[in-house]
Amino acid sequence: MEKHQMVEEYLGGLGYALRRPQGLYAPVDYVLQEGGKRLRPVLCLMACELFGGDEKAALPVAAGLEVFHNFTLLHDDIMDNADMRRGKPTVHKVWDSNTAILSGDAMLIEAYKLVSEAPAALLSEVTGIFSTTATGVCEGQQYDMDFERRDVVALSEYIEMIRLKTAVLLAGALKIGAVLAGASDEDCQRLYDYGINLGIAFQLRDDYLDTFGNPEVFGKKLGGDIACGKKNYLLTKAFEILPPHDMAELKKWMEIDGRDEEKIAAVTGIYRRNDIGKLCEDAVSEYCDKALSALSAVEGNVNSTGELAALVAKLQTRQV
Amino acid sequence: MEKHQMVEEYLGGLGYALRRPQGLYAPVDYVLQEGGKRLRPVLCLMACELFGGDEKAALPVAAGLEVFHNFTLLHDDIMDNADMRRGKPTVHKVWDSNTAILSGDAMLIEAYKLVSEAPAALLSEVTGIFSTTATGVCEGQQYDMDFERRDVVALSEYIEMIRLKTAVLLAGALKIGAVLAGASDEDCQRLYDYGINLGIAFQLRDDYLDTFGNPEVFGKKLGGDIACGKKNYLLTKAFEILPPHDMAELKKWMEIDGRDEEKIAAVTGIYRRNDIGKLCEDAVSEYCDKALSALSAVEGNVNSTGELAALVAKLQTRQV
Repeated sequence: MEKHQMVEEYLGGLGYALRRPQGLYAPVDYVLQEGGKRLRPVLCLMACELFGGDEKAALPVAAGLEVFHNFTLLHDDIMDNADMRRGKPTVHKVWDSNTAILSGDAMLIEAYKLVSEAPAALLSEVTGIFSTTATGVCEGQQYDMDFERRDVVALSEYIEMIRLKTAVLLAGALKIGAVLAGASDEDCQRLYDYGINLGIAFQLRDDYLDTFGNPEVFGKKLGGDIACGKKNYLLTKAFEILPPHDMAELKKWMEIDGRDEEKIAAVTGIYRRNDIGKLCEDAVSEYCDKALSALSAVEGNVNSTGELAALVAKLQTRQV
Repeated sequence: MEKHQMVEEYLGGLGYALRRPQGLYAPVDYVLQEGGKRLRPVLCLMACELFGGDEKAALPVAAGLEVFHNFTLLHDDIMDNADMRRGKPTVHKVWDSNTAILSGDAMLIEAYKLVSEAPAALLSEVTGIFSTTATGVCEGQQYDMDFERRDVVALSEYIEMIRLKTAVLLAGALKIGAVLAGASDEDCQRLYDYGINLGIAFQLRDDYLDTFGNPEVFGKKLGGDIACGKKNYLLTKAFEILPPHDMAELKKWMEIDGRDEEKIAAVTGIYRRNDIGKLCEDAVSEYCDKALSALSAVEGNVNSTGELAALVAKLQTRQV
């Protein structure tokens, strides 16, 4: 069976729809319904397979990573006051904030329960990686919120933020899969490094597409990040390299609330004439290369790394 | 060293004040500052000592239970929109709701990290008890919120709610302490039963004092539960046994918002003439007896159960 399908079936079998109190578990069921890419558990299973591990045995742990990821989305959506997620109204809109807080807490505990289904001999190591990862994600979210209140964020700070908020969970999922398959410490670390670079590249590609995507296939309006003043790669890079005149114009636009169309057009223009889009694509390539390099260093008696390498290629050219 | 002091020193040594990002960890440091009774870790260490275990080795796990407890208070205070806790402004008042949500999440993860410091051979059992306990606490909080929106709650439903919201964490702390000391399954279960009954008795004594406490020593205004229509022991018991005339009067008052002084006086009068206070004291005694009975059944080669028995006696007569 395909990994994605295995994860879907496992999550479906957890039976949150029937658990009581319904007020606590119906939102858990709601956010775990099909629709996501299940990227984290799939990566975990891919790493497990790579080193010849038992994917079925790894499945509860992999599912725990997906439950954790959805817990972070649930709480982030309250903090960001987001109305929609994956085309559906968010939990705090369908129910309320208190429900979203408490159901999220229950999901974090459920995630730990699933991760704790790792074999006894690996339990300490697996839960240790998971906890370190979970702390990193919280720290990343805090930096993201901190940056919203600051005027200027350095590019290096931005990269560190997305490393924590996005990349460590992908890396942790891969490392846990490798650990479950009994890979060497060195190979586990290589999978982790692959995941960190993949995660950063993924987010930078997101940043690129938000401004420079193909409007016919991108699916949402271009320039959302510019309109809300998001300190992403493009903006933090621009603040480091723009010549004085463009810098002054960029700062002027960043202080303006509203006039979205005009602002997006003007800032995109500044980016274009300073090759910021190209620099972002270069950075994506750089992190993709690092990911592939970590992957190619894997030494164990392994199955093909082709699937993991293909993910990098897909990421680099994705349009949505 | 006294157990309370051991816990304080351990928590103080965790160093949250210095961790970065400060926006995430300063609130964690704030809520963990001295002031609480540290009842849960102290119970854990008492159970460990009872069976001759190594208290120092149990300390990180015990501290994890305190971190978990404070996480629940932090998130509950957002949900209840509470302004004060232990004489200090709550985190969401000092900072904001988003900070309180995210710092709470980080605390739950920190709690798991500390609990995971249990010896490898006991790790699976200890984290299993902890996760079951944590889920119970969330379910109890959900029932508590559900009950606020209902007109009538049965006494048995109320007892089940406080069992989950309050008692299972005391019971879990005791059981974990016993497990860490290598007690038999039967004795671990006895400590758990002791904790459940202690916890329920504790909450019922709270309910009693809120209406019938000695105003000169109670410390806060009597009748707070009546004013806000809290479905506690007194109210749920009254709904089960009042004669028609008093029932009608009670229902009338419960529909009234405001007129607090009058409402408290009238409902207290209804309780008094139907001996609801006495019935509550009887229930406290009943749960205290069950706690002592579970304690006296402990069979292992144990140190004195005197300290745990004394806690029951103290609870039963406490005025604040």
